[in-house]
Amino acid sequence: MITVFSDEYYMKQALMEAQKALEDDEIPIGAVMVCNDKIIARTHNQTERLNDVTAHAEMLAITAAANALGAKYLDECTLYVTLEPCPMCAGALAHAHVGKVVYAADDPKNGFSKYGNMLHPKTKLVTGVKKEECLALLTDFFKKKR
Amino acid sequence: MITVFSDEYYMKQALMEAQKALEDDEIPIGAVMVCNDKIIARTHNQTERLNDVTAHAEMLAITAAANALGAKYLDECTLYVTLEPCPMCAGALAHAHVGKVVYAADDPKNGFSKYGNMLHPKTKLVTGVKKEECLALLTDFFKKKR
Repeated sequence: MITVFSDEYYMKQALMEAQKALEDDEIPIGAVMVCNDKIIARTHNQTERLNDVTAHAEMLAITAAANALGAKYLDECTLYVTLEPCPMCAGALAHAHVGKVVYAADDPKNGFSKYGNMLHPKTKLVTGVKKEECLALLTDFFKKKR
Repeated sequence: MITVFSDEYYMKQALMEAQKALEDDEIPIGAVMVCNDKIIARTHNQTERLNDVTAHAEMLAITAAANALGAKYLDECTLYVTLEPCPMCAGALAHAHVGKVVYAADDPKNGFSKYGNMLHPKTKLVTGVKKEECLALLTDFFKKKR
């Protein structure tokens, strides 16, 4: 059972977004931005559809959340994302002062953490939530691509 | 005298973009993306106007250039920008495989290079072109803000 308002609950929503990316033949990564227990942005990777390398789930979530709140800084928000953000996205999360970042699976090759902690010093970081499910989606996708 | 098609020429165009940012009371940073000696994108920082921390000159230039070329990868392109890119922008430039990056002034506090070279291994990097003029614009802006 998943408790509503738990990290597991919101990560499940991010995973549903990743599924949508998969249906569009995009690398299946999804994100949701949560503010005061409310999902204010649901996004997934759209680099192929938009033909734009900057269209990662996290980037789209930051822009959508800023639009929803009418605020540039997202210190009251939590980003849930199914894979460890890359340096581009970690840099954007830092600029936005996102209050908390929760990611599912580590990305040892392309994740930001190989550069140390690039997030804002006040950002709380939680990792590993639903990592098996999120990783399985990615592994299956790349297996089928080979 | 500035030779057309030189780094100085294109950096001057980026500086003109930075001036536009200044007129809009944005941090004055400008960029141009050049492909086969042709400017395919002219952008400046718009984080205030768009209320979006991701709207750096470089990010906007990457998206605009990809639209102009109908291509996600920009290996034939050179980005000129008036300040050293931040980690977010350096990450995006890496994703886009930008062929060459030329920046004017170093940004020891917020620039990407404090994390090592985050650009694509094949990206050629040139620094210091018109750095005094580009830095003067920024210094004046922040002096007036204090």
